[in-house]
Amino acid sequence: MRQFVVIGHDAPTTPDFPLDDLPGAAGRLDVLCRCVSAALFRSHGIRDDVAVFLVLGDEVTVRIDAGDLRYMNPDERNVASLLQKALDAKDQAIGHREAESTPGIHVSKRGFEAVLDAVSGTVVELHEDGAPLADVEPPADPTFVLSDHRDFTDEEAALLADASDQRVRVGPEVLHADHTVTVAHNYLDTDGFEVY
Amino acid sequence: MRQFVVIGHDAPTTPDFPLDDLPGAAGRLDVLCRCVSAALFRSHGIRDDVAVFLVLGDEVTVRIDAGDLRYMNPDERNVASLLQKALDAKDQAIGHREAESTPGIHVSKRGFEAVLDAVSGTVVELHEDGAPLADVEPPADPTFVLSDHRDFTDEEAALLADASDQRVRVGPEVLHADHTVTVAHNYLDTDGFEVY
Repeated sequence: MRQFVVIGHDAPTTPDFPLDDLPGAAGRLDVLCRCVSAALFRSHGIRDDVAVFLVLGDEVTVRIDAGDLRYMNPDERNVASLLQKALDAKDQAIGHREAESTPGIHVSKRGFEAVLDAVSGTVVELHEDGAPLADVEPPADPTFVLSDHRDFTDEEAALLADASDQRVRVGPEVLHADHTVTVAHNYLDTDGFEVY
Repeated sequence: MRQFVVIGHDAPTTPDFPLDDLPGAAGRLDVLCRCVSAALFRSHGIRDDVAVFLVLGDEVTVRIDAGDLRYMNPDERNVASLLQKALDAKDQAIGHREAESTPGIHVSKRGFEAVLDAVSGTVVELHEDGAPLADVEPPADPTFVLSDHRDFTDEEAALLADASDQRVRVGPEVLHADHTVTVAHNYLDTDGFEVY
């Protein structure tokens, strides 16, 4: 399974944001929506065996499980509307337990540390100071951890340093988080591409 | 220079489309907007030396030149609003000559064939039946040609076969056009990545 954890530092934790202003009033939610699309969609279908965790303001986490997902289109507005529904269901989530807002979309009152505890597989930090992706053996069940348009805070960086097994970068250019997700997928897709 | 030509088969050719329904009423303009973002943006800046040609309904082309670009954010709605301005300026473009709607964005009444004649460098068709990207020597000045959510029509495919020097695919998975743009950039970025 491939998992992606994306931290949204300025992202909303309540559903009262306008779908018409995702970059502004919704705290760069456009970036997170594109990360979701990049993680889940391939042409004419959904990738199997992928999960995305969006950590919003270090207090709410939306987990999207590709296996059960319904009703999602790859455009930012549609993804944002489903995230809005998830935030609207937040009060049904008690403690760290999740509530399902629409099929495949789960909300919980968890911050970054609790999510790091919950993910499985090899935790890979995607960071501009990491080793080139091409020099790293692809892990079987990677969990990639990324930040939105902001850097990891010192506290996040410390938590991640404890949890992560690898720190990699996708290339010499520093990319947007969603583009990084796409490159990470392609890197895993093309491992052994010759045999296809 | 890196150039990207993206064909939008159902995309609008007039500015009277709603920004609230890019996938539906605006004919999957969301895909083209994400292609523009993927082609132009890196983290905290614009890529130098990139141009994007959006061929809309085989009759209008919007050319976006990264070198002169102003006022663009990477979210779909913002890109779409600038495309709307370009379509609004369409009648200022006479014959195949361009009119500039906002800095760096140019509109002309050109279809796919005229755009293929206008682009420079090595024309590379991105297609699921092409050779794996990793097996192809990166061209110095590539022009990547992609289709939106639809396949190339027979006529487009014939024109492209005449014009293109290479046909490549980005991996075993068939990706969305915008994700393909991201992978193509990464492929060129990381050529010689070891020396960074």
